[in-house]
Amino acid sequence: MSVRRLAAGALAIALIAGPAFAQDARTIREAEQLRDRALEENVAWSLVSELTTRFGPRLAGSESEQASARWGAAKFREMGFDNVSIEEFPLALWERGTASVEILGPFPQPLTVVSLGGSIATPPGGIEGEAAIFETYQQLLDQPAGSLTGKIVVVLQDTVQAQDGRGYGATSPIRGQGPTEAAKRGAVGYVLRSLGTHDHRFAHTGATRVGEGTIPAFAMSPPDADQLRRLMRLTDQPVRMRLHSTAGFTRQSVSQNVIGEVRGSGAADEVIVIGGHLDSWDLGTGAIDDGAGVAITAAALKLIEDMPRRPRRTIRVVWWGSEEVSQPPPAQGLAGARHYAETRRDQMANHVAISESDFGAGPIYSLGLPAAAADTPFQRAAQAVLTPLGVLYDPAPSTGGGPDTGPTVALGVPAFRLNQDGTDYFDTHHTADDTLDRIDPETLTQNVAAWAAFLWLLANSDVDLRPTP
Amino acid sequence: MSVRRLAAGALAIALIAGPAFAQDARTIREAEQLRDRALEENVAWSLVSELTTRFGPRLAGSESEQASARWGAAKFREMGFDNVSIEEFPLALWERGTASVEILGPFPQPLTVVSLGGSIATPPGGIEGEAAIFETYQQLLDQPAGSLTGKIVVVLQDTVQAQDGRGYGATSPIRGQGPTEAAKRGAVGYVLRSLGTHDHRFAHTGATRVGEGTIPAFAMSPPDADQLRRLMRLTDQPVRMRLHSTAGFTRQSVSQNVIGEVRGSGAADEVIVIGGHLDSWDLGTGAIDDGAGVAITAAALKLIEDMPRRPRRTIRVVWWGSEEVSQPPPAQGLAGARHYAETRRDQMANHVAISESDFGAGPIYSLGLPAAAADTPFQRAAQAVLTPLGVLYDPAPSTGGGPDTGPTVALGVPAFRLNQDGTDYFDTHHTADDTLDRIDPETLTQNVAAWAAFLWLLANSDVDLRPTP
Repeated sequence: MSVRRLAAGALAIALIAGPAFAQDARTIREAEQLRDRALEENVAWSLVSELTTRFGPRLAGSESEQASARWGAAKFREMGFDNVSIEEFPLALWERGTASVEILGPFPQPLTVVSLGGSIATPPGGIEGEAAIFETYQQLLDQPAGSLTGKIVVVLQDTVQAQDGRGYGATSPIRGQGPTEAAKRGAVGYVLRSLGTHDHRFAHTGATRVGEGTIPAFAMSPPDADQLRRLMRLTDQPVRMRLHSTAGFTRQSVSQNVIGEVRGSGAADEVIVIGGHLDSWDLGTGAIDDGAGVAITAAALKLIEDMPRRPRRTIRVVWWGSEEVSQPPPAQGLAGARHYAETRRDQMANHVAISESDFGAGPIYSLGLPAAAADTPFQRAAQAVLTPLGVLYDPAPSTGGGPDTGPTVALGVPAFRLNQDGTDYFDTHHTADDTLDRIDPETLTQNVAAWAAFLWLLANSDVDLRPTP
Repeated sequence: MSVRRLAAGALAIALIAGPAFAQDARTIREAEQLRDRALEENVAWSLVSELTTRFGPRLAGSESEQASARWGAAKFREMGFDNVSIEEFPLALWERGTASVEILGPFPQPLTVVSLGGSIATPPGGIEGEAAIFETYQQLLDQPAGSLTGKIVVVLQDTVQAQDGRGYGATSPIRGQGPTEAAKRGAVGYVLRSLGTHDHRFAHTGATRVGEGTIPAFAMSPPDADQLRRLMRLTDQPVRMRLHSTAGFTRQSVSQNVIGEVRGSGAADEVIVIGGHLDSWDLGTGAIDDGAGVAITAAALKLIEDMPRRPRRTIRVVWWGSEEVSQPPPAQGLAGARHYAETRRDQMANHVAISESDFGAGPIYSLGLPAAAADTPFQRAAQAVLTPLGVLYDPAPSTGGGPDTGPTVALGVPAFRLNQDGTDYFDTHHTADDTLDRIDPETLTQNVAAWAAFLWLLANSDVDLRPTP
């Protein structure tokens, strides 16, 4: 039975019988109990602490990511989840090697840099060239083809701090497409100001698009970009640089999604999908990105598993593999998320909704729902239960649920969002500083409370989040 | 004429004629004007900005340090200082190369480390061994000789945050003597928790004692030490590690002190010495350690140079070379400071006092004077002029004036101190994060104001800071 048909039936009942399911008093009371119980527990903290301590960094396709997946499946079984499995998929393994960028003149000095994820190596002797330095990315895009032949392109544009991450949204093309755009214009190397919102000397990695004509690409720390600005004010001479990197895709490997469920009772074939990604960049230990997210969603499901009754719908937690590293063509994109969706094309009609926790470990401050939920008893129940956690209802319809939900959402599955405050997220994101101490345990439990309470409402409702045909 | 004999004569005059020199109304008024003028200027900021931007890191004996010294001498001349000179001395150049420490098992993962300054390299294949992990340094010292044969010693002791840096004072032997103590007991490698007071993933370098039986020595970042603590709680198995480093003294080189003066008028042969050190560690750009100090002291002297009248005594600014790197035996210690004092043994009687600015860029919060100045009109004048800057008078007698004053103080020259608030200093000290953005320009001018005003009082006084014979 498709969700849509079932929901239409339920709606008919609701019209006759008044509030039912999510909006019934018992479900709401249970959701409140779940919410309050979550605040007393530290399951998520235990999970993220053990994950980051045992495995350290979990680069996609690495032995460490594989070992963490086996540990994750064992944890899921230990917590009593149903249908626990590890779904493997092939992956090209990218490894960082070493990276250096130095100013040769005037004023020779080394910069603090990392290679962008997916970057190719320089020739063994490195690359030397004159820097073409742009304050904004648009200035680079405005250059005609061939005008940067032999140049090393440097983009200094800052990332603006914003609660919802829109500053990162605005600058992420500088990392994703910048090297390709520079290469199109003849550049031989690429250095951007890290997509970071702080003034510490950490460079941020992150994926860049891999493909034909690609050139070695680096991120420098924010203070290094400021140093370069000051340096240019001291001289009219061209800045010469040397780049060196041994980064690259080294071999075929395997990544995997780890899956577990709490099976529903009554509408078990209707599935709500939640999760986070298990892989991390190699510089830190993947605590806020995305140890926090895998821990929050699994801990929320554990609270539901421990309820005296089963939810009506099935809730599935997925710890996606390989969210971070863009694969070389033709397989570009998020490998684990794509594998999840593509192997379930025929099950998408039974997917009620999907969402991911992948925006750090800050407090949840708003709930976003698809347009279909607006002004429904379900929405009002969710709003009432989440308000005491400091979570507001965002009337803007949610159109996505996080990076790993993308391929599933593209197949028509509605997404909801429990939006985390990301004001500080890009201080740490993709840096060596992404370690456990960046997580506040109390804030983590606020996240678990919001997820558990909301999931209980959604899993015990008949609400259809798909647009009305 | 020696300072002491002259001071005795002046004291006789003071007894007869009432308050004179520093304590006279004109000098005090001028000191106040200097203080207030300093707060309106940004000479120190310009100096430290240009120094750190042009030369980046200035490792002792490097071309960068040498170039910065030539620039410094030119700046001194440009500012109108007298007797500007560069005094060279030989130096063994230490270079960092690469460093890595990884946990082989259980729970394999890399740690974020740096080599300690002066450390030797590992053999090319690295060093593998079982870790002997100590929570405190004393636990290491309690081990009998030979009990750590073949082990890699790890010390996890925290550095306590303290305004006056006493937390660093307490833990600095862990870095300075720890490797030697571990080697004495048979250890083959040494890893300490960085002497840092923060939770970011920066490892702190800093000198370790170089000598017979030395072993490769590393500092890990504070979060890595915490990670190791958590890891040990997850297992009873011994932790195995691999160390690798290519650090070492690579060749003979040259460092130098840069010297300039404002010559006194009336008692020109009486010299007050101030300064900071021009070299820095190679990880950052030496902004707070010690670009700030060289800039503060030179800017203070420039304000005095610009006064309508000359001070009575001469004020000499020294930008010492090679403060950071301990030299191998027999020349261990601060190379520039030792060279300064040893080449002036016969001039020490004419050195009125010495002090250095080498504790970051925090605000000055107290003045420390030698016991001889306690309860004098000079002390009361200084206290009155500095109080509006938020500087208190510390009744504890000053016995030293900073690292580079040591060899001069050892030859009997009195030291004073304008103590900076170092609460945050060890968040950044000796890390890659020691860059210009760590300095607050307004706080820097507060430093300049305190130095200029105090120097004006001291240079126009007859006060004898040496102990009464």
